[in-house]
Amino acid sequence: MSVVTDVNATIASIRREVCLLHAELTRYQLVIWTAGNVSARVPGRELMVIKPSGVSYDDLTPDNMVVCDLHGRVVDGERAPSSDTDAQAYVYRHLPHVGGVVHTHSTYATAWASRGEPIPCTLTMQADEFGGEIPVGPFALIGDDSIGRGIVETLSRSRSAAVLMKQHGVFTIGKDARSAVKAAVMCEDVARTVHIARQLGQPIPIDPRDVDSLFDRYQNVYGQKDNS
Amino acid sequence: MSVVTDVNATIASIRREVCLLHAELTRYQLVIWTAGNVSARVPGRELMVIKPSGVSYDDLTPDNMVVCDLHGRVVDGERAPSSDTDAQAYVYRHLPHVGGVVHTHSTYATAWASRGEPIPCTLTMQADEFGGEIPVGPFALIGDDSIGRGIVETLSRSRSAAVLMKQHGVFTIGKDARSAVKAAVMCEDVARTVHIARQLGQPIPIDPRDVDSLFDRYQNVYGQKDNS
Amino acid sequence: MSVVTDVNATIASIRREVCLLHAELTRYQLVIWTAGNVSARVPGRELMVIKPSGVSYDDLTPDNMVVCDLHGRVVDGERAPSSDTDAQAYVYRHLPHVGGVVHTHSTYATAWASRGEPIPCTLTMQADEFGGEIPVGPFALIGDDSIGRGIVETLSRSRSAAVLMKQHGVFTIGKDARSAVKAAVMCEDVARTVHIARQLGQPIPIDPRDVDSLFDRYQNVYGQKDNS
Amino acid sequence: MSVVTDVNATIASIRREVCLLHAELTRYQLVIWTAGNVSARVPGRELMVIKPSGVSYDDLTPDNMVVCDLHGRVVDGERAPSSDTDAQAYVYRHLPHVGGVVHTHSTYATAWASRGEPIPCTLTMQADEFGGEIPVGPFALIGDDSIGRGIVETLSRSRSAAVLMKQHGVFTIGKDARSAVKAAVMCEDVARTVHIARQLGQPIPIDPRDVDSLFDRYQNVYGQKDNS
Repeated sequence: MSVVTDVNATIASIRREVCLLHAELTRYQLVIWTAGNVSARVPGRELMVIKPSGVSYDDLTPDNMVVCDLHGRVVDGERAPSSDTDAQAYVYRHLPHVGGVVHTHSTYATAWASRGEPIPCTLTMQADEFGGEIPVGPFALIGDDSIGRGIVETLSRSRSAAVLMKQHGVFTIGKDARSAVKAAVMCEDVARTVHIARQLGQPIPIDPRDVDSLFDRYQNVYGQKDNS
Repeated sequence: MSVVTDVNATIASIRREVCLLHAELTRYQLVIWTAGNVSARVPGRELMVIKPSGVSYDDLTPDNMVVCDLHGRVVDGERAPSSDTDAQAYVYRHLPHVGGVVHTHSTYATAWASRGEPIPCTLTMQADEFGGEIPVGPFALIGDDSIGRGIVETLSRSRSAAVLMKQHGVFTIGKDARSAVKAAVMCEDVARTVHIARQLGQPIPIDPRDVDSLFDRYQNVYGQKDNS
Repeated sequence: MSVVTDVNATIASIRREVCLLHAELTRYQLVIWTAGNVSARVPGRELMVIKPSGVSYDDLTPDNMVVCDLHGRVVDGERAPSSDTDAQAYVYRHLPHVGGVVHTHSTYATAWASRGEPIPCTLTMQADEFGGEIPVGPFALIGDDSIGRGIVETLSRSRSAAVLMKQHGVFTIGKDARSAVKAAVMCEDVARTVHIARQLGQPIPIDPRDVDSLFDRYQNVYGQKDNS
Repeated sequence: MSVVTDVNATIASIRREVCLLHAELTRYQLVIWTAGNVSARVPGRELMVIKPSGVSYDDLTPDNMVVCDLHGRVVDGERAPSSDTDAQAYVYRHLPHVGGVVHTHSTYATAWASRGEPIPCTLTMQADEFGGEIPVGPFALIGDDSIGRGIVETLSRSRSAAVLMKQHGVFTIGKDARSAVKAAVMCEDVARTVHIARQLGQPIPIDPRDVDSLFDRYQNVYGQKDNS
């Protein structure tokens, strides 16, 4: 099989994966209408695959996913890519370990974001997945690099795979698109549980040494050997 | 094809569209039992298509949608039209750019309405879709023009596609029925997120110039060229 | 067809109706596990049809519904009837206009019940369906007439089709089982919306004359002529 | 049929039951992604059956359930068992009447756990199922006996079938896996309802003698003779 065939097969497989993962966003009610998306890097290429803009989740197919370069220019696809493409392309350019990015306006996480307040680490699940508090990134208008730069700067100072962009919503990252979707699901779950806990009192913070211990175990031991 | 056949085909197509769009109201849990409805204008005619009154969403078919004139009188259909027909007909008579109207009692939006409190603009998504705060219309009894007049007067003073009718529920408008449904879905999402943000502090307002910039981009750039 | 065949056909039809209506309780998430039930009077007979006790909603069939007399004694059926049978039988004995009864522990209504607080009338939907506040009935232990008596005494002093039994849950009534289910669905919706409204301020009460006017119209005009 | 065949048939049946019961965790939204699990004791054997670690609920089959001994060592299965296996094995070793264990991070119960606050008994449903308040167990790191010991010590001092492990989540027990799942479902329902009641005031406590009476009836009379 030639190198060209190889990369075509890889892109076809990523189109399917990115398309299917949107079903997790709707399953966990992280998105409404067309307001949220998943993208994935094409490994070893300066390319990414992302949802088309303004298309209903019911109408997504592997074929209507859009392939862009890492400056957000369409390389293959008949639709305009998500309006978040520039921000996500910026993340792929500046964080080489990131293989997937997700954007949502999930309710509870966005509520924390709208107050500009990070989510404190009070649950073992948050320590496991995020290794501490979930940080807040700056308010940024769409249309230039400012959203992407805000994501990258905030996540570079944190172990968290999620950032709450002020007055806007959530971006999550992962080694691949599936991991980024998992982080989006867990971010909303943590945001909701800590919110509810705070309504009737103060959730107890977890000791930073325990946070380290939980994060280390979860990242290295949890799950099956072949897919952890 | 004669003009008569033409308008019949158009009405048949609008019957299907209006019928199907009710599934978005149930999908996003904006309605219970029979308490909410979608209508659409028949373009170029003094006609509208609306849900029958008191019929379960499971039992809706294109055929049992009701065609009325713009004073709410039944022109075609065996069922009584929605009890909101007069209000929606008033909207079509007075706002010629409106092609669709939706009415719900969606939980969070109705909670704001029951306090008579507009939803402040603190989220980029709200700026995108509504261009500012979501306003409150007057308390009005069903049975004359007062609901329709309250909707029209309130929306005429606002860029918002949604109005919270005091102690009652939500009406949304759009260039067609699908846009009005989208506004209903986003209105509840915004109402919920801002409510939850407010429970633990104050969401940060978005600068009015940023609201203008977001609204302008979203109305003119977002989505696919052929359906934005 | 003989009178015996007639009543058998009626009972078979009510078994189907009561069985199917439980799907509305799960659809609107008014119940968990086996904790809630629907019953119906057999018109013109001293009989009622009710859910079997402790049977999962997935496993309900018309055949395993239980026929009891109006003292809760099993007349036909292989299962023990709902542990709420005595309370519901009491309602049928004392309120001859009631053709259906529903019991749930739906979340928001039960929260009001656990504080012993009636739901004030601040929404047109509540005025329409309940004609005023939703009242609280006494705390009562299961095992004798005290639950049934509490329901009947409370509802006899009110236009409401729903009563919040203190520290327990909700009972609703209707002219038939479907109407009682509708009241259960709307009671939870109202309980939730008013709760949420109250979290951030005070919902505005509806003027009692407007409540009367809304209730009168909804009970007499709303819906289709043949099924209002 | 030989004894060996017998135990194999029993294990096959338990694999099916444990696998299927995970669908109740997702149905009632007690879990997200892979964060929660069900196990069952193999009666008369020093064995248990549990969910594999980090496997999506969609991908569970009877065959990929894992059989462990009561020290958490894999006896049969190709996957690593849940990371909660040690804690659940500890429960089976020390509480011989327990036939099933469930672990979730269900939202409202975990919110109480994160404040280290037991759920007071203010609802008849809680008296029925839990016989009083739902207690809090200690904060414990994963990796040794401390979670299992915390569960056993807490539940040994209570009639409750559920324990809120501080800053972590919920463990429930039952005579079999189905009963433990039921306790998990009801624990979240009670946690949610009491939380919501407390948001606007104080739910009324149930008199301890009434709690005893309700608990006794529900444990001994409710449901069908053959499956109560």
